[in-house]
Amino acid sequence: MSNNSVTKQAIRRVQQGKVADVDDVLATEEPLEIRIIYGPTRTHKNLAVTMRTPGNDTELATGFLYTEGIISKQVDVTSCKKLNDNVMQVELDKSIALDLKNIDRNFYTTSSCGVCGKASIDAIKTECTIYDKVKPFTVSAETIYALPEKLRGHQAAFAETGGIHAAALFDLAGNIIMVREDVGRHNALDKLVGAALNGGMIPLQQHILLLSGRASFELVQKATMAGLKVIVSVGAPSSLAVQTADEFGITLIGFAKRDKFNIYCNSKIVTV
Amino acid sequence: MSNNSVTKQAIRRVQQGKVADVDDVLATEEPLEIRIIYGPTRTHKNLAVTMRTPGNDTELATGFLYTEGIISKQVDVTSCKKLNDNVMQVELDKSIALDLKNIDRNFYTTSSCGVCGKASIDAIKTECTIYDKVKPFTVSAETIYALPEKLRGHQAAFAETGGIHAAALFDLAGNIIMVREDVGRHNALDKLVGAALNGGMIPLQQHILLLSGRASFELVQKATMAGLKVIVSVGAPSSLAVQTADEFGITLIGFAKRDKFNIYCNSKIVTV
Repeated sequence: MSNNSVTKQAIRRVQQGKVADVDDVLATEEPLEIRIIYGPTRTHKNLAVTMRTPGNDTELATGFLYTEGIISKQVDVTSCKKLNDNVMQVELDKSIALDLKNIDRNFYTTSSCGVCGKASIDAIKTECTIYDKVKPFTVSAETIYALPEKLRGHQAAFAETGGIHAAALFDLAGNIIMVREDVGRHNALDKLVGAALNGGMIPLQQHILLLSGRASFELVQKATMAGLKVIVSVGAPSSLAVQTADEFGITLIGFAKRDKFNIYCNSKIVTV
Repeated sequence: MSNNSVTKQAIRRVQQGKVADVDDVLATEEPLEIRIIYGPTRTHKNLAVTMRTPGNDTELATGFLYTEGIISKQVDVTSCKKLNDNVMQVELDKSIALDLKNIDRNFYTTSSCGVCGKASIDAIKTECTIYDKVKPFTVSAETIYALPEKLRGHQAAFAETGGIHAAALFDLAGNIIMVREDVGRHNALDKLVGAALNGGMIPLQQHILLLSGRASFELVQKATMAGLKVIVSVGAPSSLAVQTADEFGITLIGFAKRDKFNIYCNSKIVTV
């Protein structure tokens, strides 16, 4: 991994009623845009943007082109050039025939993202201005300690399969309101937000969102759109997840366990 | 969750040298295509395909449109109609102005997929015919027991952050060849395949792929493209991951631990 594959972050550790402000290290998450140059007329195309950890970017771009069936051997790539930190330009051999219709049909989307994280964060800002005024509130550490156990009691498909993500909505006292499950964590959250929308509950400013896995940029982005101000994840957050939560005044908590958790930003609303 | 959110599967449990053929339950993974009808001329557009667990599909579609900023309130959706099991058509109010350029720019792709899993599996079949002839081999249960511990010793960024996925390549004797890490598990695998491609190692027919998380369709698809015949995941596989592995003669193992694992298909190559 490159040096920028991890990011330093000041965090607040809460454990058994004690607080410690310490330095921690997060997995870096940044967008990589893969551009290709192909065909007899050397056409340029922005093929894909993936949220990745910097490092081995040339391997990532060529591996992506290979596993997606766009190239079939190493010599199909005539050059790989980093245009900047987050843009990789791959020139394909003139012999490679691309059916663009086929490519567009063959990629599916899982989330929104601008050409870079910054652009995307700016886009959320525009969308979310209506949610700026939040009634002040606090959440107790005891409430947060109890969340993962409460979720487990409601995860029907997880109990059966051990292989499904969940997004759960709680009120500020830690009462569970609803749970949605899916193999895709972004889908679990979209289902939850869809249900909240149908129920006239949005913006979810007096609620806690619990995520069964890690917190990525994508999940924080979706939660931000729904007006959420407290996100608790059972796993680790990425660097861009923390940066985005911080910008929107969201309290982001990770590694939530029965007697401890980490607060990555906006920690003052949590009373210990 | 709906009844089809889980799928029954016959599996082989291996634990401390003993074998049991039992019935198990997997999280169902299937594509959902979200189509929209919008604008004054009632334009139809296939907006996105997401690999999801069936159930709450209307919530998923409306929640997706909301968290991606395409709609801003419930009444923006005038109807949601299931065209078939895996296609949801959402009609938007005529007042909703969509900037399609903006939409296309704002979605990023993480993987390939046809309009349905079946079409995508067929596409892989076409791409992978050159890999059909595999030299017969076996892998011992002892070799598989040891893999997760070997990976942990090589996960630099995970050790620091606790929040990053890994894909690792082993030979058939369980010797570790390389590890790649990323916040996105599909990226970790693409980096690994890119490195293998650059090293002239593809097809990877005499190797074992170890995944640090769950095995989804997407990961099995990418591994299939690289010629892999043995995939071991630390977490659970989805239904479509097993179905795809089975069709391509890949041995798919899940819940790999120090003294036990499950084999989901093509179990005969594992000697116990």
